Amino acid sequence: MTVNKSNPNLSDIYSPIVDSLDRVKGKISSLKDDKYSDVTPLVKHVITSNGKKVRPAVTVLSSKFHPNDGVAVETMAAAVELLHIATLIHDDTVDNSDMRRGKGTVSSLWGVDEAVVLGDYMFAASATFVCDTGNIRVIRRFAETIMELSKGQMNELIHAFSSEQNMDDYYERIYNKTASLFATAAESGAILSGADENIVNALRTYGINLGIGFQLIDDILDIASSKEKTGKPVGNDILQGIITLPVLVHQKNNPQDDSVQRYFEKPDDLLQVNEILNKISDDSVVEECLDIAYRYKDKASKALEILPDTTERECLLDLLEYVFIDCRY
Amino acid sequence: MTVNKSNPNLSDIYSPIVDSLDRVKGKISSLKDDKYSDVTPLVKHVITSNGKKVRPAVTVLSSKFHPNDGVAVETMAAAVELLHIATLIHDDTVDNSDMRRGKGTVSSLWGVDEAVVLGDYMFAASATFVCDTGNIRVIRRFAETIMELSKGQMNELIHAFSSEQNMDDYYERIYNKTASLFATAAESGAILSGADENIVNALRTYGINLGIGFQLIDDILDIASSKEKTGKPVGNDILQGIITLPVLVHQKNNPQDDSVQRYFEKPDDLLQVNEILNKISDDSVVEECLDIAYRYKDKASKALEILPDTTERECLLDLLEYVFIDCRY
Repeated sequence: MTVNKSNPNLSDIYSPIVDSLDRVKGKISSLKDDKYSDVTPLVKHVITSNGKKVRPAVTVLSSKFHPNDGVAVETMAAAVELLHIATLIHDDTVDNSDMRRGKGTVSSLWGVDEAVVLGDYMFAASATFVCDTGNIRVIRRFAETIMELSKGQMNELIHAFSSEQNMDDYYERIYNKTASLFATAAESGAILSGADENIVNALRTYGINLGIGFQLIDDILDIASSKEKTGKPVGNDILQGIITLPVLVHQKNNPQDDSVQRYFEKPDDLLQVNEILNKISDDSVVEECLDIAYRYKDKASKALEILPDTTERECLLDLLEYVFIDCRY
Repeated sequence: MTVNKSNPNLSDIYSPIVDSLDRVKGKISSLKDDKYSDVTPLVKHVITSNGKKVRPAVTVLSSKFHPNDGVAVETMAAAVELLHIATLIHDDTVDNSDMRRGKGTVSSLWGVDEAVVLGDYMFAASATFVCDTGNIRVIRRFAETIMELSKGQMNELIHAFSSEQNMDDYYERIYNKTASLFATAAESGAILSGADENIVNALRTYGINLGIGFQLIDDILDIASSKEKTGKPVGNDILQGIITLPVLVHQKNNPQDDSVQRYFEKPDDLLQVNEILNKISDDSVVEECLDIAYRYKDKASKALEILPDTTERECLLDLLEYVFIDCRY
């Protein structure tokens, strides 16, 4: 089942844009400068965490197909990362998570109320950065993206432990909760560079498919990675009543199997959940899920074909490899 | 202690702008039209509550000092009300409130997680409305206002049960949590109408002082209104460890009294809290607080002197009366 490729390293991928990303980091750090504000210690905590910065890198790389001075693009990249941080703060609050990127979460360290308010502050701070680009089209997309992110989160909350979720619902949810921001990250970089609409569309398509692929892989790893490492699938998603690709694929192939429905009706039945986990972590299910995920990788890659063959295009393709590489274990 | 004035009625005050406010209501209602979204039932719940609509009325009235078609202004007024609703959703979540405007809160009916996510959605929805105005200056002020609102909330959370809060801290907090949005409501109406900067500034000054006065009166009524009605001050603020004007005035006049500090060190000491409530609801304290609040009313009213003497200017003055009228009980 393994496809061996050399694992691309993020610092190698980022090397052509390392100066840009440093300036993006500087812009984000400027949020710590408000000495007299009560939010400052919490802001420091969340912005000094070491994320992978995939989204701002996508924005910067997407701006490299039309000459521009980089100022608006780097501001936008900072906004995209700040928005991502804001959503993580509220996600961790909603999920009762204690740890994030190797540090305690705001809700676990300061409290749920503080996390709600800090998330709001970070949403607004990210919005002021987008305003600094001066581009209404990009500002609007940004606001719509926050609406989509919230819709994705709400869908997950409202339909937890409901077995009536089909493949279409699932794709809509992961578009909203993950792909939307990747799409905006890519699209806004292209728009702010002044690129033609066909390039803007190509990069948006890349972002959507990278984002969907990113989430599909995440959902597959929820089962497959832990099984690979520990011999036992953990399956956090199904334990939280969230139906993802492996369950949907298993159900498609076994329409008579009502074990998920029975588990959702009695979520304390751990025998039942173990039975489900064994079924959905079966090699044939995982393989079929990976085939589906790789279709999105192909779509993302194909979208870039209209772009000139530059270093930055290569970096966008390498980012795809990075997201997908660990999955054919 | 009573100053009798005829109590202005909101529907009378709004009568010159009733058509505008109806269109604002229609714009807000359009958020319910997304039939396939999981957020829709929750959106319906929060936008059909009957608020007083003071903030959107301020936006519309502030736009009436320069000819304009009203379209951008009404969109902005809808955004201002939606932002207010978004903050109420998160405030109620943070405060564990069960009721709002005579209905159950989102957090009590659907859950805290759902309230966090719905608040985010409403923030974003309000931002898309502001984007529809096409005015970057107004969009930026809107984002800054959300930052200020969050700072005000965070200040209240972080310094609860801390006796080291002085008058300056208090004014900064109430500017952030209340006056900021009133200021933006007024300022944005003027900006979008195309009015001159001196009119924009006058209306912003009106908004700030109306907002501070609004919050001062609210904080005074927290003690005085219940005492008037029931003979007993309720004092929700002090019970939640929040220092407001009556405490600050009492402390200024009695610097040797450390009862608040002692209560904050042992917040379950109900005898202590009763003693404090009796002190801060004393007629002389309330009277001094009202004198302070009325100074903001005067400043708001004075700011409008440069405006032409029109019906709409009269309405803005009547709104001031409305906010302040119930207080000289």
